[in-house]
Amino acid sequence: MKSARTADRTELTELGQQLRVDAVRAAGAAGSGHPTSSMSAADLAAVLLAGHLRYDFDKPEHPANDRLILSKGHASPLLYAMYRAAGVVDDEELLTFRRLGSRLEGHPTPKLPWVDVATGSLGQGLPVGVGMALAGKHLDRLPYRVWVVCGDSELAEGSVWEAAEHAGDQHLDNLTLIVDVNRLGQRGPTRHQRDLAAYARRFRAFDWHTIEVDGHDVEAIDAAYKEAASTSRQPTAILAGTVKGKGVASVEDREGLHGKPLPDTEAAVTELGGPRFIRVDVAAPPSGRAPKPPSGRLELPRYEVGDKVATRTAYGQALAALGTARGDVVVLDGEVGDSTKAELFAKEHPERYFECYIAEQQMIAAAVGLATRGWTPYAATFAAFLTRAHDFLRMAAISRASLTVAGSHAGVAIGQDGPSQMGLEDLAMFRAVHGSTVLYPCDANQTARLVAAAADGEGIRYLRTTRGDTPVLYGPDEEFPVGGAKVLRSSPHDKVTLVAAGVTVHEALVAADALEEGGIPVRVVDLYSVKPVDEQVLQEAAALTGCLVTIEDHRVEGGIGDAVAECFSDGRTMPRLVRLAVENMPGSGTPEEQLAEAGIDAASITATVRVLYERVVTS
Amino acid sequence: MKSARTADRTELTELGQQLRVDAVRAAGAAGSGHPTSSMSAADLAAVLLAGHLRYDFDKPEHPANDRLILSKGHASPLLYAMYRAAGVVDDEELLTFRRLGSRLEGHPTPKLPWVDVATGSLGQGLPVGVGMALAGKHLDRLPYRVWVVCGDSELAEGSVWEAAEHAGDQHLDNLTLIVDVNRLGQRGPTRHQRDLAAYARRFRAFDWHTIEVDGHDVEAIDAAYKEAASTSRQPTAILAGTVKGKGVASVEDREGLHGKPLPDTEAAVTELGGPRFIRVDVAAPPSGRAPKPPSGRLELPRYEVGDKVATRTAYGQALAALGTARGDVVVLDGEVGDSTKAELFAKEHPERYFECYIAEQQMIAAAVGLATRGWTPYAATFAAFLTRAHDFLRMAAISRASLTVAGSHAGVAIGQDGPSQMGLEDLAMFRAVHGSTVLYPCDANQTARLVAAAADGEGIRYLRTTRGDTPVLYGPDEEFPVGGAKVLRSSPHDKVTLVAAGVTVHEALVAADALEEGGIPVRVVDLYSVKPVDEQVLQEAAALTGCLVTIEDHRVEGGIGDAVAECFSDGRTMPRLVRLAVENMPGSGTPEEQLAEAGIDAASITATVRVLYERVVTS
Repeated sequence: MKSARTADRTELTELGQQLRVDAVRAAGAAGSGHPTSSMSAADLAAVLLAGHLRYDFDKPEHPANDRLILSKGHASPLLYAMYRAAGVVDDEELLTFRRLGSRLEGHPTPKLPWVDVATGSLGQGLPVGVGMALAGKHLDRLPYRVWVVCGDSELAEGSVWEAAEHAGDQHLDNLTLIVDVNRLGQRGPTRHQRDLAAYARRFRAFDWHTIEVDGHDVEAIDAAYKEAASTSRQPTAILAGTVKGKGVASVEDREGLHGKPLPDTEAAVTELGGPRFIRVDVAAPPSGRAPKPPSGRLELPRYEVGDKVATRTAYGQALAALGTARGDVVVLDGEVGDSTKAELFAKEHPERYFECYIAEQQMIAAAVGLATRGWTPYAATFAAFLTRAHDFLRMAAISRASLTVAGSHAGVAIGQDGPSQMGLEDLAMFRAVHGSTVLYPCDANQTARLVAAAADGEGIRYLRTTRGDTPVLYGPDEEFPVGGAKVLRSSPHDKVTLVAAGVTVHEALVAADALEEGGIPVRVVDLYSVKPVDEQVLQEAAALTGCLVTIEDHRVEGGIGDAVAECFSDGRTMPRLVRLAVENMPGSGTPEEQLAEAGIDAASITATVRVLYERVVTS
Repeated sequence: MKSARTADRTELTELGQQLRVDAVRAAGAAGSGHPTSSMSAADLAAVLLAGHLRYDFDKPEHPANDRLILSKGHASPLLYAMYRAAGVVDDEELLTFRRLGSRLEGHPTPKLPWVDVATGSLGQGLPVGVGMALAGKHLDRLPYRVWVVCGDSELAEGSVWEAAEHAGDQHLDNLTLIVDVNRLGQRGPTRHQRDLAAYARRFRAFDWHTIEVDGHDVEAIDAAYKEAASTSRQPTAILAGTVKGKGVASVEDREGLHGKPLPDTEAAVTELGGPRFIRVDVAAPPSGRAPKPPSGRLELPRYEVGDKVATRTAYGQALAALGTARGDVVVLDGEVGDSTKAELFAKEHPERYFECYIAEQQMIAAAVGLATRGWTPYAATFAAFLTRAHDFLRMAAISRASLTVAGSHAGVAIGQDGPSQMGLEDLAMFRAVHGSTVLYPCDANQTARLVAAAADGEGIRYLRTTRGDTPVLYGPDEEFPVGGAKVLRSSPHDKVTLVAAGVTVHEALVAADALEEGGIPVRVVDLYSVKPVDEQVLQEAAALTGCLVTIEDHRVEGGIGDAVAECFSDGRTMPRLVRLAVENMPGSGTPEEQLAEAGIDAASITATVRVLYERVVTS
């Protein structure tokens, strides 16, 4: 097929049928999958591939390639059929769909070089696409277009409207959303069925340009894409009325067939006109080079030992310095930059700062989108509110995205604001994210070093910061490798080991002094790297003292106590373990009162160790 | 003040000033808090309290009381000032704001009898209010009105639009949203500043009635509330243009003052006309009784030992039976009822089934709203997608809400669909929720019993179900107390203990047979109650075998391995521990292939135990 603007109605219609046939065949071979959801969007996909997408499939890394996100990831057979039509997946591979080891998974992932982000949790494609479109406009300054294909069901997700607001506000005319309004969700009709106007009204209210179109009329689709591409100052939503299962009468517009292969693959293929192979010569991207952000020497802020500085302040100051040294660093914040201190970066590098307002899902999604374009994002809000973006973080890991997330105002130590503002579940959440790194510094110099180290990490890096000022313990030249720990107190006579991180390090040191005076020397470990954890330091401490007490400003589940226990879970002899963590439901109170109420302050640590020491000595 | 419809402009304005004075005084006494955010909404609050709210403050449990949710929870001084005006909080208590032990926390919580749900994570008030309004219309059938006061910043949260869609679709004319459009967020101006029309356009697109009003004109506000109350078939959003810090010239409409007490409390109080005490005689609720849902004998489904039944199917069947026995049980689902099997309840009890479409935040919020009205909600979607509602679950715990959440399609055992659909972080998420219960049944009879037990629980109960069929292991009369565990294999000679739950129980049993044959008798524990965990069974097993192997279809962090380790974290001598969990990034594959790839199938267990046994025996 001669591709592009030259294809006529018949050719495009034929290509749509081919995509249907291949989707049906792939699902038939797999014995599972979503052919009917693929068939509804096949004409939309055919016109896009043959007439509008500008993409060098041999060079997926080409900086000016358009981006295509299939937000309705369950329609993966359609995407894979497009890849076959583009000549990069052959028929043999197509039929490996959903098999062990195949790149053609049930839902698309970046195992395929043309997939930028994993989809399959609905309502995430547009939010990520907004991040890519922001990169195109403000950072890459390249004319690529971002195409997002989504379903109608997923428009019920609030994240879609966070993204709509972000895109409308930023006038992202390089972004087109194609909505496959096929009327049927998984278990039955959607709320608005085929009421295209209902959806259009919503997008227009969010300052989008909208086009309503028959999603099976290839000429109308072509015109809609042209209109979208030529619309300026507004993103475009194309509301396409389609028929689920289009092309095979027995399944068209029928309930109860979601996520099932067609009853008779062969008959369906015949009804669709039989197998064929039209190879599409996809249009090349415009020429264009990726910008080379300048880089220079990193001059991190330096803090005097003994000064009192909040680690969140060090986060902002280090980030501003990092931004000066590295032009690839970009920062996002959820309208709390004066609290997270991301505003310190914004002041120095406003052109690389993205205000996401109070929309944490959109903030993480935009960060993922920016990361796919090669930028190095840091995204921050209160640790508590990062739970809002949990599903996006989970999917970011499946997308093999690389970004740093900072959560400020961790734990009960925030004081008076009360439990709604306290991050007490964040360590559990981030530790369980596949391939994550979890860092929790206790002083300003450590924070600065970890902020810099995070830039070179892989996967999702989490950095937890504290609201209040804490004393600087380490000199500015001390190094803190990811995966390390610092032994702050030790002697050959240590009876117990205290393992703390962040704000509890300071409590542990006070307790250690009191215990030492009382004749119980204790070791103190600063576990600033909660994942990966320094097994060697902990195992040595266990071997010597036989007993570890973890102290954390976090729920007892999933945090530092679990991280420590996990590093002894290889069948070795275990030390005794005791956990001090936040087991109460906090109210208001000063930071000191909160730590005492939760039983994680110096006095509680001291009392616990005394009891434990008695027991171990006498047992 | 003679309250209600009789108050004139001067009286209402005076009351507004009083609320400002008291908010300023409370924050001044606390030395922290959000007086300026309270001052913008003071006139809106005054007119509501004196003229429209129907509420018996002496009987907060009155079934016909209106509901008031302060979604912008940081403006708590305003709410507490309203309580003082209503005569239920005295001046002395007002000045305990934000002190340790005070009911007047930084953000409102149900420690106060007039607060139904905790707020402070923005964008949650409206979603919960929708649940209450649904209860009013469809279950309680009482004429109470739900008033939600929110800020303009929080309209950036997608959850607000999930709720707007739900409310518009359900024609909730008993719901009024009052938006305090004060132009300023925390760190600066909002996206739309004081563009009331921008917000109104969005709500109208979602089928709401909207009213734009000057939020400091008490007569206009009064008219708007009347219009809202008399609007039928549509919820109403009142977009009120206000001034942050209204009434004190030095802080009015000024940036940089969010969340700070006024610079000079005394001068501010003077400028506001000085302290005063107008006591508002709040209108009584209409008479009305809470419905008494019928209750009968529970006849749970019974399954034959050896049959193969998916636990998700047992969830649906048990829920349908529970619904027959208990009229207070209501069910919500995220448009996947054919997968979670909640549809089995829907078929029998359609009047108590709430389809929430693909909007997990809204589903959990609606469940919380229904729970506050005394109903017993069960909400379900795929375990993976519950991460979308993490912040709502966290806040539900702070709200002391009582509900059951079911996550289906747990783990790699789902097979071909791939990682986006696999719940692999859900146990970590739910274990860290304060006061939660986490249940993970392995067979159909156990599932049925636990579904029934959950109805009488407290806090957030999580029930994890499996996609595929699993053999029925237990008879239908077996009991499964929450906090218990079942020892499925044991002998006095057991060398190792296998601790499994859900799908891995079946793998552990196969492994146990193979090991027994090979001369290594092992104990098998079915840890169906992951939180609370049966410490006695585990400690006995540890005492006998000295070695525990946990096997879980979940990430290694935060799940069953951690739950087991935690119950030895009281300083006692520890057993050896080994964890088998999902540490790879799965792709597609059959359920059997997935379990093998993750190293949690019978063969992997057998191999692990053999190595471990060698080591322990030889060490």
